[in-house]
Amino acid sequence: MTEGGGAVTDMLARARDVAAQIDRGFDRLLAVPDDARARLYEAMRHAAIGGGKRLRPLLVQAACDLFHISRESALRVGLAIECIHVYSLIHDDLPAMDDDDMRRGKPTVHKAFDEATAILAGDCLHDLAFEVLADEETHPDPFVRIELVKALATCSGPAGMAGGQMMDLEAERTRFDLATVTRLQNLKTGALICFCVEAAAIMARLPQEARTGLHGYARDIGLAFQIADDLLDVEGDAALAGKALAKDAAAGKETFVSLLGVEAARERAHMLVDQAKDHLRTHGAEADLLRAIADYIVERDR
Amino acid sequence: MTEGGGAVTDMLARARDVAAQIDRGFDRLLAVPDDARARLYEAMRHAAIGGGKRLRPLLVQAACDLFHISRESALRVGLAIECIHVYSLIHDDLPAMDDDDMRRGKPTVHKAFDEATAILAGDCLHDLAFEVLADEETHPDPFVRIELVKALATCSGPAGMAGGQMMDLEAERTRFDLATVTRLQNLKTGALICFCVEAAAIMARLPQEARTGLHGYARDIGLAFQIADDLLDVEGDAALAGKALAKDAAAGKETFVSLLGVEAARERAHMLVDQAKDHLRTHGAEADLLRAIADYIVERDR
Repeated sequence: MTEGGGAVTDMLARARDVAAQIDRGFDRLLAVPDDARARLYEAMRHAAIGGGKRLRPLLVQAACDLFHISRESALRVGLAIECIHVYSLIHDDLPAMDDDDMRRGKPTVHKAFDEATAILAGDCLHDLAFEVLADEETHPDPFVRIELVKALATCSGPAGMAGGQMMDLEAERTRFDLATVTRLQNLKTGALICFCVEAAAIMARLPQEARTGLHGYARDIGLAFQIADDLLDVEGDAALAGKALAKDAAAGKETFVSLLGVEAARERAHMLVDQAKDHLRTHGAEADLLRAIADYIVERDR
Repeated sequence: MTEGGGAVTDMLARARDVAAQIDRGFDRLLAVPDDARARLYEAMRHAAIGGGKRLRPLLVQAACDLFHISRESALRVGLAIECIHVYSLIHDDLPAMDDDDMRRGKPTVHKAFDEATAILAGDCLHDLAFEVLADEETHPDPFVRIELVKALATCSGPAGMAGGQMMDLEAERTRFDLATVTRLQNLKTGALICFCVEAAAIMARLPQEARTGLHGYARDIGLAFQIADDLLDVEGDAALAGKALAKDAAAGKETFVSLLGVEAARERAHMLVDQAKDHLRTHGAEADLLRAIADYIVERDR
């Protein structure tokens, strides 16, 4: 128990550290220019700086720990992923999409600014993700950088996150079964979470056959993360979450909780976390942060 | 005169060829999947296939002619640029932005589909641009590919196209002078046009100091292109253009024509084309296509 408590304490300290570094990274990346684009940069800063669990950058750090990849490289990749994550939140919150007014306890970008600025701010963060990855500051080897770009573009595009978001729109019109909801979530949130560990494998130049365990871990925690989100959506505290809850039921969308029930959903999330940790069994203490993240994913309250 | 006529005929033939190849490229890239994402792919196909002058891919071909770069590489880069160009048109046409109903003689994506699908279709084409560039089919050298990615991300993001679009939104609130309108257009349309020739320089591994002439050519035709667009906006035929015209004046935005007058604007466009061709003076017949494109840019009727 003490050991587990220690791992959680270590993880929370590391998470705070990573979050502070990501904020500093965005602060540098988004210096406001003294011209008519100032409002665009202010909108990007509003969405990108402060708040946010920065779970994805932490996951990159944890996966990079396995292969002794520099924390600087891991941080740059984490910053690129947050660019994609934040861009997707800005666009998902738009009136034409999920129509959300609050995010991370603040007004969403189209509320604090306007819709046109929100669309452009999302588009710009989308570009910045690739600009960050392509820069040699991220990794000295151009082959590694181009592999990172290729993987991220695939994970965020129609075969990944955006494809999942499209399925999510269709979910309001069609009744999805468990297999389809699982596929939807594997695309919508799973693909980017998989990229977090895949990036470490790319930077470590790990052969494809040696990536199976990491992929299994990422797939399992990605799904567990979404089930936990669905549980928080029905049981959580909107003030803690910093956004509106219980929206899926209102929109008539099937979720893991609506399809399985609360108890079976919770059981499945825990089963997935155990399975995720089992994928790490060949690793020693260097995988402790990955294990702690897996536990945290189903135990968090926001 | 016969010589000039021949160059124009050659250019039009090459343009048709490139346009057909870009359509085929999109057809392959956007094969519709048999799942809930079908509508997303249909929306991308609606915007990306058919219509369009494909001026940017033609420009890549023309610049690549100078350095004997393979037409396959030039085509892949052209496809990536069209992904960015089409994504920007989809988002610019949205109700929150320019609110346009027609584009290339067809309903815009949010009209033919819906706003949410249009936002996602734009986002997906944005990713596909980088996926295309990052693929080894585009160029065998990963260093060249990463340089292409870096340059395209910069040209399309807040320091380029999207930054210019933000200035364009501000132009409805603030009265811009000629210097500011020039900067706006250098970002909004110029940056991507510059990338077309810069991509050839990157693939040719041309040293920076040897790129000056090409950069000058691109900057001049980019501005000439926009002035010609402003002239078409007040004098053109909406049926030929396939979109609504005279929108800038209605929105109270300053343009080259409102600031200079029709005659002086036309003179400036022709002066820029002469200047652009002068940047090519050290080149022989291998630059004829670039010269013909410069002429075409101010003589087109749509």
